[in-house]
Amino acid sequence: MLYPLPAVMVSVADGQGRPNIFTVAWTGTVCSNPPMVSISVRPERYSYHCIEETGEFVINLTTEKLALAADFCGVKSGREVDKFEAMGLTAAPSVEVRPPQIGESPVSLECRVEQTVPLGSHTMFVARVVSVSVDERWLDGTGRFHLEQAKPVVYSHGTYYGLGEAIGTFGYSVAKKRTKKRQK
Amino acid sequence: MLYPLPAVMVSVADGQGRPNIFTVAWTGTVCSNPPMVSISVRPERYSYHCIEETGEFVINLTTEKLALAADFCGVKSGREVDKFEAMGLTAAPSVEVRPPQIGESPVSLECRVEQTVPLGSHTMFVARVVSVSVDERWLDGTGRFHLEQAKPVVYSHGTYYGLGEAIGTFGYSVAKKRTKKRQK
Repeated sequence: MLYPLPAVMVSVADGQGRPNIFTVAWTGTVCSNPPMVSISVRPERYSYHCIEETGEFVINLTTEKLALAADFCGVKSGREVDKFEAMGLTAAPSVEVRPPQIGESPVSLECRVEQTVPLGSHTMFVARVVSVSVDERWLDGTGRFHLEQAKPVVYSHGTYYGLGEAIGTFGYSVAKKRTKKRQK
Repeated sequence: MLYPLPAVMVSVADGQGRPNIFTVAWTGTVCSNPPMVSISVRPERYSYHCIEETGEFVINLTTEKLALAADFCGVKSGREVDKFEAMGLTAAPSVEVRPPQIGESPVSLECRVEQTVPLGSHTMFVARVVSVSVDERWLDGTGRFHLEQAKPVVYSHGTYYGLGEAIGTFGYSVAKKRTKKRQK
């Protein structure tokens, strides 16, 4: 009911270091300082136990190019298939955590679980972001990151969408009024 | 770092029933059954105390038409201005909670706080969705809701965007393969 949402690919590893990917839309930022995120996962999902075991996961943002892989990783279980191999994705080493990053993702957030909150069908993992990797292709000369150029994907009521037109930037409602006043 | 996100207008009421609106991007779905959402709010924000006091809030989804109001409600404080009045928004009565809904929003989720989790700069309110109101204009003949027709807004790195092209529907990565097999 709360849409549109990001559809992120979460990479995990089991106790033996065997990696897996699954896709979640039940995710969000929950704190700015320290940087914290949450993901909610059904306990019957294969990757749930990897997160419980290691206390670590990586959130990899999804682009239009990665949408098919994101969908596949949301539908298929790691019990049946090696999703890195099936989707031709690169398991790149992470900086701070054991689960690998997805090399093709423009942004990967390495996370360490701080709280596990059972809520019903889903358990919420509240996690600290301990390292962030970004694809330098989307950095401009001033070090500003342009995720929009990587064509991120959002998920709404069962459909994946690209980003549309830019409508305004934070504060534009007030900036407009100031401009009008100046013109008087 | 985790983007794009929804930018929702949250309506609250203080102990005297005086309503306010503020905008958050730190929100998400955290459980399907029971339906639960979270919002993260800085304790110094005016509306924080309303939620603490009443344990209730309403999440109102934002559309392209409402983007200017959403931005205004994110920038301005309820201490200074009546945002319903300033933005010409309708405070419509809710079904289960005291804070009003925003009449112009296509979807309003009435929420009751179940857990308050202090995390640092932000406190996360984990809440049960106790009632959902949708604008019937976006229901089709079969009762299916078409949020995309209401032109929802997402927020990414300081900019509001509309939805772009539909890329695929959940399961399309697998459906494709099945079709191919049938053609053999």
